[in-house]
Amino acid sequence: MKVAGEWLRPLRVAAAGDAVVVIDQRLLPHRLAFETLATPQAVHHAIREMVVRGAPLIGATAAYGLALALKTDASDSAVEAQAAWLKAARPTAVNLAWALDRMVRHVRARPVPARAAAAWALAGHIAEEDVDVNRRIGEHGLPLLREIAARRGVDPGRPLNVLTHCNAGWLATVDWGTATSPIYQAHEAGLPLHVWVDETRPRNQGASLTAWELGQAGVPHTLIADNAGGHLMQHGQVDLVIVGCDRVTARGDACNKIGTYLKALAAFDNGVPFYVAMPTSTLDLAVSDGLAEIPIEERRSREVTHLAGLAESGQVIEVAIAPAGTPAANPAFDVTPARLVTALITERGVVAAEERALRALMAQTL
Amino acid sequence: MKVAGEWLRPLRVAAAGDAVVVIDQRLLPHRLAFETLATPQAVHHAIREMVVRGAPLIGATAAYGLALALKTDASDSAVEAQAAWLKAARPTAVNLAWALDRMVRHVRARPVPARAAAAWALAGHIAEEDVDVNRRIGEHGLPLLREIAARRGVDPGRPLNVLTHCNAGWLATVDWGTATSPIYQAHEAGLPLHVWVDETRPRNQGASLTAWELGQAGVPHTLIADNAGGHLMQHGQVDLVIVGCDRVTARGDACNKIGTYLKALAAFDNGVPFYVAMPTSTLDLAVSDGLAEIPIEERRSREVTHLAGLAESGQVIEVAIAPAGTPAANPAFDVTPARLVTALITERGVVAAEERALRALMAQTL
Repeated sequence: MKVAGEWLRPLRVAAAGDAVVVIDQRLLPHRLAFETLATPQAVHHAIREMVVRGAPLIGATAAYGLALALKTDASDSAVEAQAAWLKAARPTAVNLAWALDRMVRHVRARPVPARAAAAWALAGHIAEEDVDVNRRIGEHGLPLLREIAARRGVDPGRPLNVLTHCNAGWLATVDWGTATSPIYQAHEAGLPLHVWVDETRPRNQGASLTAWELGQAGVPHTLIADNAGGHLMQHGQVDLVIVGCDRVTARGDACNKIGTYLKALAAFDNGVPFYVAMPTSTLDLAVSDGLAEIPIEERRSREVTHLAGLAESGQVIEVAIAPAGTPAANPAFDVTPARLVTALITERGVVAAEERALRALMAQTL
Repeated sequence: MKVAGEWLRPLRVAAAGDAVVVIDQRLLPHRLAFETLATPQAVHHAIREMVVRGAPLIGATAAYGLALALKTDASDSAVEAQAAWLKAARPTAVNLAWALDRMVRHVRARPVPARAAAAWALAGHIAEEDVDVNRRIGEHGLPLLREIAARRGVDPGRPLNVLTHCNAGWLATVDWGTATSPIYQAHEAGLPLHVWVDETRPRNQGASLTAWELGQAGVPHTLIADNAGGHLMQHGQVDLVIVGCDRVTARGDACNKIGTYLKALAAFDNGVPFYVAMPTSTLDLAVSDGLAEIPIEERRSREVTHLAGLAESGQVIEVAIAPAGTPAANPAFDVTPARLVTALITERGVVAAEERALRALMAQTL
């Protein structure tokens, strides 16, 4: 997407072709800065520390990480060990494992000397494919937005109100975003819309990333505390919810950023459609019961007790917001049961959150 | 309650008897500081700016505000005008109106020269009564906690897990708190318990006030992002929820801090009992449909886009957490429909969130 008139992606190959350059998302919205990742160690660190985040972007970045590793050692054991190590950087999103498994299959089918180049090429392909997948998610989502807009009647003074949680925007992918792709396409098509942006504690990806993205793209939006969405739905202020996902199970349970489940409950309680934008790389047909089977990452308590922001001095400063020594728990994701999901918006089309429909979708020859 | 071994209340009469001294709750948990309110203007400011907050505490403080006003002019018109002006300081909590209406009735029945002294005495009575009411809420709530603990089987290694939202602690009242009163009494009685403290964005009353209170009292607790409660309930980590309230309608709809409704939905979805601790001064029998009839205060957007915390320098600093100029909405309360409330814990006993039961409770002669 464009930032200040320039096309920008959160992941691109460095000019010399021997590294990738990513946006350091920990510094947004206060500073747009880049980090060059030239080693698998740098990639692992960038994923673990959330320099890059968002399930699709993690997958593409990890693919490059493995490609970088194979430059040094492309033996079977190295391929397996490096892939396993990169996978362990974050446990919840399935795209990481999906991209790495695909990379491993691809390179293991090739002679050792050809593996590094093949890996680099496939990583590039995965990244480009992600852009295409997300564009298509937008194309399939746009008619849904138009339909709801037509039913409610919208005009610039009463736009279509979309609520989103966390950042499933272009910063979470290689481009377009997942949840934001229908939003960007609707905005470009001239549909009057307005986005309620959940700030998404504790890491504030909504306040720092989604608000920034939408601002750059000129999409009208309003930041809200995560607590506010239910109240807005009770008062008819939300026409639909679209969120991203980190893993969706065979029966349609959707694992996404912590707090998503609460918004799904409120949407259900108020008859508001609740959509999950899902590249099919996020579908994990090997698991069924999301609550029992998806490992939920527990992150550092400091993410809850402390918070960084821009001080009047112009410096980004971390401040404590709880009494010193307060224990804190920090589960990073939750699972929204399929019964609360109106439909999944995928690059292959809109599909019910239901096992038969999901398996049929995946069985289609494209 | 005790702080560092000293009995402390968030509202007390100054030594000279001509003003009240309150804890400046905007500075907690980083600094325990007091403010002396010697004029109705100072009281109005303290309520509006949330130097004091919490429905019961607002009511008692406002009563003193009116008493201070009557020292200057105790005529009928002054009584009415000052009461109306103090009422307007915050629109949602009904205790403010309840305390002021009671003050007005009391002083108007007396000759003008006797009014200032009568008002001061009644304000003191309202404050003491609040302490007693909250103590009794704890006495009625304690058996509920014991019952749930007995059913679940608790021990120090597997304590009773209570989740609370915002601060309905002693800081929100004159003493004991409402939601915390059963918690403090259970803790004193030796029941092993642990409290999940919702941080309660945007003003973080959970992180800054509830965590501080519970820490001072030695009650085991863990701070969580508001987003985390649903996930914890899905995983059996919450045995019951207790929250306070700012206004409860005749049919039992409970207006409380924004985000309460989301926790009530999650509790309902997971079969977790959801209790509202309610001094009957918070019951507004004049309204029925909480969603349609309770005015919801919309606070400054800066409370969402900025946040104050303790920097490493030891200073409390405000930082921006969203891109400059991001629009933000800040509804301060929401309404939990009666159907999601397991019961109300009042000073008169535990009562169903149902009109007939509530009217019967209020009709009892005490």
